[in-house]
Amino acid sequence: MPAPVEFDHLRVVLVDARNPLNIGAAARAMSNFGFRHLRVVNPYDVAFEGARSAVGAAEVLTSAEKYETVADAVTDCSLVVGTTAIGHRDLQHSIQRLEAGAPLIRAHLASGPCALLFGSEKFGLSNQDMSHCHWLIHIPTREEHFSMNLGQAVAICLYELIRDPGAVAEPEKGTPASAAEVERITETLLAALRASGYPKLNSSDSFEGAVRRLVRRLHLQTGDAEFFLGMLRQMIWKMKKGSEAES
Amino acid sequence: MPAPVEFDHLRVVLVDARNPLNIGAAARAMSNFGFRHLRVVNPYDVAFEGARSAVGAAEVLTSAEKYETVADAVTDCSLVVGTTAIGHRDLQHSIQRLEAGAPLIRAHLASGPCALLFGSEKFGLSNQDMSHCHWLIHIPTREEHFSMNLGQAVAICLYELIRDPGAVAEPEKGTPASAAEVERITETLLAALRASGYPKLNSSDSFEGAVRRLVRRLHLQTGDAEFFLGMLRQMIWKMKKGSEAES
Repeated sequence: MPAPVEFDHLRVVLVDARNPLNIGAAARAMSNFGFRHLRVVNPYDVAFEGARSAVGAAEVLTSAEKYETVADAVTDCSLVVGTTAIGHRDLQHSIQRLEAGAPLIRAHLASGPCALLFGSEKFGLSNQDMSHCHWLIHIPTREEHFSMNLGQAVAICLYELIRDPGAVAEPEKGTPASAAEVERITETLLAALRASGYPKLNSSDSFEGAVRRLVRRLHLQTGDAEFFLGMLRQMIWKMKKGSEAES
Repeated sequence: MPAPVEFDHLRVVLVDARNPLNIGAAARAMSNFGFRHLRVVNPYDVAFEGARSAVGAAEVLTSAEKYETVADAVTDCSLVVGTTAIGHRDLQHSIQRLEAGAPLIRAHLASGPCALLFGSEKFGLSNQDMSHCHWLIHIPTREEHFSMNLGQAVAICLYELIRDPGAVAEPEKGTPASAAEVERITETLLAALRASGYPKLNSSDSFEGAVRRLVRRLHLQTGDAEFFLGMLRQMIWKMKKGSEAES
């Protein structure tokens, strides 16, 4: 499916990124999820040009725009959201957990451009960078290890933007076997046990019931029922043939 | 907050991983989100030992276990889930979108160990690897570019496992200004406009109403209202002083 048109309103802005692998990883996640506009502010130039020329860099990276300042990079945006690992400073902004912040961004994208800012690998966004933001989001990491890899942080934020809260579990493939099929297996299994001389078979009245319940716990599919029946019949044939040879 | 105890039931299994940076990135995301058990199957040994010795590798990587086969790596798990980019082959398994599959995994973790398998960077999981899986999940990427970076795929899957579907947006920081404060600003702004000789002020009866509505659209906070009042009063003082000097 093509990405929704409003995704064109998102600008992913990497501020002071230092590692070309991270710039490349951010661009790759953007392409995976259908976002096109990458902006880099004051990148380490060798890193940026390195990432641009990486194999498979493709469209998002080659069309990335370079800016001198955060102000220049967000100039067309009517919402500017920063990302932060929190924990390490006293922030003046409102902070949303990603799960709660992403729907606000998604709602905004329908009406106008939004910038999503990520800071450098080492220091994150500076207070100066954050002063351009309306509010902040954070990915709910553990306090003991809150700092994420930049490429992974970008990927997770974008995933939360594209995620479908209404996605429901698919039913398992195949059609459940009918009661008749399941009962045919039960009988064939009992026949195989008789042919094998399985000792418990006659020792307990409840044994047949235990086998019947066992077979039903297997949640067999229609095709699988046939598959098992074939195996059991072959084994019954072989066991009977062996018995005839013996006698 | 500490990670929930059932997170100890997850085994992240990297099969045939080739790049030490990806193994390291997987371990880092695990640590960010509170998962401890990393298993690698048939890794490119130089890559694995390189990742283990990387700076900041820390606990998850140093305690990672190495296995020869997928069967060995999942032996204690009562649920085995594979990840796939789909699109490139005809799969026999049930496939769940990540959003729908993660709750099933989370539910299982409460009762027993679960393995989450990731294939190699280039080829993903083989059909042989997948035959050990109960079902598969996929991250909903675009068909035009479905293949994700391994470290990012691991991070996104773990994020979906720790994500709080009940997280709600925080109210904005601060207290909204009262009507009295907002009206005081309106009057002070009008006084400033009068002092400046703003031309429209007397040209239209509705101008005062327009200013009143403008101020109300600002959604001022209590502290911000005081901040603005101070600025306006200073400007009024300066304008009046200039006028006195002129006359």
